[in-house]
Amino acid sequence: MQGAILVLSGPSGAGKSTIINHASKDIGDYYFSISTTTRDPREGEKDGVDYYFVTREEFEEGIKAGDFLEYATVHGNYYGTSLKPVKEALEEGKLVIFDIDVQGHRLVRAKMGDYVTSAFITPPTLSELKKRLYTRATDNTSIIERRIENAKEEIKAVKEFDFVIINDKISKASKEFATIANAARLKQSSQELENFVKIWDN
Amino acid sequence: MQGAILVLSGPSGAGKSTIINHASKDIGDYYFSISTTTRDPREGEKDGVDYYFVTREEFEEGIKAGDFLEYATVHGNYYGTSLKPVKEALEEGKLVIFDIDVQGHRLVRAKMGDYVTSAFITPPTLSELKKRLYTRATDNTSIIERRIENAKEEIKAVKEFDFVIINDKISKASKEFATIANAARLKQSSQELENFVKIWDN
Repeated sequence: MQGAILVLSGPSGAGKSTIINHASKDIGDYYFSISTTTRDPREGEKDGVDYYFVTREEFEEGIKAGDFLEYATVHGNYYGTSLKPVKEALEEGKLVIFDIDVQGHRLVRAKMGDYVTSAFITPPTLSELKKRLYTRATDNTSIIERRIENAKEEIKAVKEFDFVIINDKISKASKEFATIANAARLKQSSQELENFVKIWDN
Repeated sequence: MQGAILVLSGPSGAGKSTIINHASKDIGDYYFSISTTTRDPREGEKDGVDYYFVTREEFEEGIKAGDFLEYATVHGNYYGTSLKPVKEALEEGKLVIFDIDVQGHRLVRAKMGDYVTSAFITPPTLSELKKRLYTRATDNTSIIERRIENAKEEIKAVKEFDFVIINDKISKASKEFATIANAARLKQSSQELENFVKIWDN
């Protein structure tokens, strides 16, 4: 497989989607991995765009069949990444971008570490995160509080990532993201390098 | 320290200097680490530009004083990297570029791994390397043969590097190098991240 994987993690409110949108013209062709979930769609969410929405039974069948690259339960719902579209995109030589949590990063790295570059995206401070989540006001207070507690936990895993993008200015953060994405494409899998070394032996 | 280290390794004849020259306008301010050696200057080589030329006694005093980030003997001569200018450049937030061999890469990574991004630069094939070395004709046949044997050994360490640049086209290789250099600047040291996590705890 010729492609590469870029894992993005970071607190809700870090600005991941905005950064990807801003940078998309500078990073060439990529496949944004869509997660599968058993939770109900929220207003405006579309199947196959925001998530693949499936039943609990379908998800559990997928687990048994080994369909998932990574999965977890969060507040009673399953979330996971199907292996098939990721493999297809890698075989087409694409950059596959994941927006997953730090636990998902660990699993993807464990399974496909050869292909993985990772970046943790974070607001500069906790108080800035609070401000953004409250200003955005898409969630109620208890969800915001939970997000903040999650963020404080996730930030502790920052050292597991290849890169950290501190999003204090969207133009700067987007440029940094584009640089990292383009470098990620240059990462070569061990498999390819093995072949390369063999060629040199002749 | 705020800077970053980019280690470049690869066979003599891979095109490292040409690539750095081509890319230099795209990678911002950097400090190119100059090695110290006890070998005699070749025609045209300048002290403080190509190498710092010192006596055997001076070099050995430096070893005892812990002045070297890495050093080795090659064909009876010492080659090493002084720690001081590297530290100064890192403290100024600069990208420090090393052109050292795979053994030097191991030592720099062992001592300053937090700061290190590395790239192995290689011609696409062994026969292409031979062609380049013989065409360049700056060395006699026995030196060329030695370089080729070294290259075959060094290529086996390719998997220890973060990136591999296969220099089949100088414009493409220079662009890839610039992308890697700019990504290297975004690597954060564990120390900085430690402080960052502490701030988040408050």
